[in-house]
Amino acid sequence: MDFDHLWAELAPVGRDPDSGGYHRHAWNAADAEARAWFTDAARARDLDVRTDRNGNLWAWWGEPAPGAVATGSHLDSVPDGGAFDGPLGVASALAAVDVLRERGLTPDRPLALAVFVEEEGGRFGVPCLGIRLTAGEIDPDRVRALTDADGTTWAEAMARAGLDPAALGPDPHTLGLLDAFVELHVEQGRHLADTPHAVAAASTVWPHGRWRLDLTGRADHAGTTRLEDRADPMLPFARTVLAARESAAAHDARATVGKVRAVPNGTNAIASRVSGWLDARAADRSTLEAVVAGVRGEAERSAAEHGVELRVAQESDTPVVEFPHALRDRVAAVLERRAPEPGVPVLPTGAGHDAAVLAAHVPTAMLYVRNPTGVSHSPHEWADPEDCHVGVTALADVLQDLLERPVGEVAP
Amino acid sequence: MDFDHLWAELAPVGRDPDSGGYHRHAWNAADAEARAWFTDAARARDLDVRTDRNGNLWAWWGEPAPGAVATGSHLDSVPDGGAFDGPLGVASALAAVDVLRERGLTPDRPLALAVFVEEEGGRFGVPCLGIRLTAGEIDPDRVRALTDADGTTWAEAMARAGLDPAALGPDPHTLGLLDAFVELHVEQGRHLADTPHAVAAASTVWPHGRWRLDLTGRADHAGTTRLEDRADPMLPFARTVLAARESAAAHDARATVGKVRAVPNGTNAIASRVSGWLDARAADRSTLEAVVAGVRGEAERSAAEHGVELRVAQESDTPVVEFPHALRDRVAAVLERRAPEPGVPVLPTGAGHDAAVLAAHVPTAMLYVRNPTGVSHSPHEWADPEDCHVGVTALADVLQDLLERPVGEVAP
Repeated sequence: MDFDHLWAELAPVGRDPDSGGYHRHAWNAADAEARAWFTDAARARDLDVRTDRNGNLWAWWGEPAPGAVATGSHLDSVPDGGAFDGPLGVASALAAVDVLRERGLTPDRPLALAVFVEEEGGRFGVPCLGIRLTAGEIDPDRVRALTDADGTTWAEAMARAGLDPAALGPDPHTLGLLDAFVELHVEQGRHLADTPHAVAAASTVWPHGRWRLDLTGRADHAGTTRLEDRADPMLPFARTVLAARESAAAHDARATVGKVRAVPNGTNAIASRVSGWLDARAADRSTLEAVVAGVRGEAERSAAEHGVELRVAQESDTPVVEFPHALRDRVAAVLERRAPEPGVPVLPTGAGHDAAVLAAHVPTAMLYVRNPTGVSHSPHEWADPEDCHVGVTALADVLQDLLERPVGEVAP
Repeated sequence: MDFDHLWAELAPVGRDPDSGGYHRHAWNAADAEARAWFTDAARARDLDVRTDRNGNLWAWWGEPAPGAVATGSHLDSVPDGGAFDGPLGVASALAAVDVLRERGLTPDRPLALAVFVEEEGGRFGVPCLGIRLTAGEIDPDRVRALTDADGTTWAEAMARAGLDPAALGPDPHTLGLLDAFVELHVEQGRHLADTPHAVAAASTVWPHGRWRLDLTGRADHAGTTRLEDRADPMLPFARTVLAARESAAAHDARATVGKVRAVPNGTNAIASRVSGWLDARAADRSTLEAVVAGVRGEAERSAAEHGVELRVAQESDTPVVEFPHALRDRVAAVLERRAPEPGVPVLPTGAGHDAAVLAAHVPTAMLYVRNPTGVSHSPHEWADPEDCHVGVTALADVLQDLLERPVGEVAP
């Protein structure tokens, strides 16, 4: 397989020389370079590369036709993100084609390698844009009008990249060709780090919500205003941050405040408003609701204590995704063949993925490759080269299995 | 007196039509308009208006000479600040000249009305720039190189306003002419609101410090990183905010975190770094040190608990200013003559002022005009018109007293 060579070619694209993190975002220069890398690598393998109406890339081994098996991921990163989240699945897909060819496989049905645009939402704020457009799950007008931090719209950025933003829209034809989709992804967490297994199968994606909390108090002079005369929204904000941690711990879930904005944000002024964003995820919806209720309760109590007004708006709401059990079990069984010991892990995750969007339209499965530290969305994200090789072989095994026998077919 | 007319002319200059707050900052268009208003009003009173090397305005009644009495304040605001902080002292100075003339006063010694540049530091971040330059308390090279949020330097902005930034520097000659300086200012706090007094004298300006706390953790995925694997700097930041409030309350002082910056500030990313700015003030230095020690202790404890690195840098350190007792008592005695009942308040303040900088060079006093809500640095800052009129009369009384008998002279 040619994984190491592929990975070495892609590694410098969009990498910040200081932090070592990546800045690959939809339609920027690094994104164009990464897309060209994929196109060249696919053509070097005699695959037929097509760009769909939304800018997603599809490289076909065999003529597009019903019953196709697809794999892939994304090449974009969060701002200053890691090398593996997304690209590992794309490079592994290309390397898996090499493995299948080395095995002499000549599939009866086509295999497609997909690269989906802007999975992270790093530039335009909304995740999984490419696949959500193709799946018809987001309004093309809304996407065209999205702006980046500089005020550039998606439509302008896409046009500058040489594609036609007027063409955006669903592509039920392509999705209708797919019998199954498999995404390989670096693990985001460290479940595998404590096991002998380099690869796992996915069970579910946790339900996930994002809330904006606006705390409005009263701007005032930091030096002269008596404590008892203040309506300082920074205080209930601080309580909310701590409540998020406590509520998540109480429910074995995740809750994070990673974004904050204070107004006027002056050193000698009590803030008039502090806005915080809460990201919460849990194994199931009722647990998620309990986590968020705990945070809201403390935010309300503390806001009232300090004479601060609280408004809460839910900005996103993603239901649980349960990957189909039959396909999940079949993938796990394939992984079991080469596992260092029985019992390949089948893991839930708190992260969103292109595969999670696709799961509503196509039988979908995921493979995770071990991450020794669990760190993700950071320059410190990592997977050992040996584990990446195990991942490529595992993906090739799964694709071969799916190509040899359609998902709908009963096992012999 | 012509106070109401003066105030009505100045009120619209630099006012935000939506918030009602002011955006008057050094060398911007509103600043130029406010300076022109002062120049016109002073000339209409046959005062001789001079611009010093640092851009401060001095309007002279009588030829500049030793033994001069001076009054004044500033016309700039904090971003979206109130109408009174600064301008009340300037408009009252002009109106006090009218009152003294109505009384038929023909002073033997000159009276100067001063407008100091950029007291708030709203554009270039450093407060009291005009008076600190004139007093020789800040390096002109440093001031010329200061930049605003758009990257414009002080030197560029001053040159565009038609003044020569190469001329910046101390002006011991002008300061040497002054026998006394009196600044009238809106009260920032509500001590007077609970009394029958519309005007108070100043005792001290509290010592004041500003600290930057950088909390460095590890960027990570908000959805996938287990709580126990996180190094989330938002958590010790929140503890620090709460500790500031608790420590200030325990010491009858002020401590505020009004400014925060998170990196990368993403909704689905654990922050890699959170920086908070602590503003702390207390009645004396040892109390201030105790307040800050309380905050630092909790920040250190919480940072260590969460595996986060803490760095603390003091950005400013302003010692206590004690206005000279003899002049303070003389001012209070003058105010006592018209007071609604005996016992004119003599108040400390937590706010910095041009007068506090001048106090190291010239015998200096301050008058405060009642603020019914105590709110300051906000569009809600307020003083009742009747109280403003009482303030003008009080300032005229004090100036007349100082003009009739030099500060150094023993009372008859």
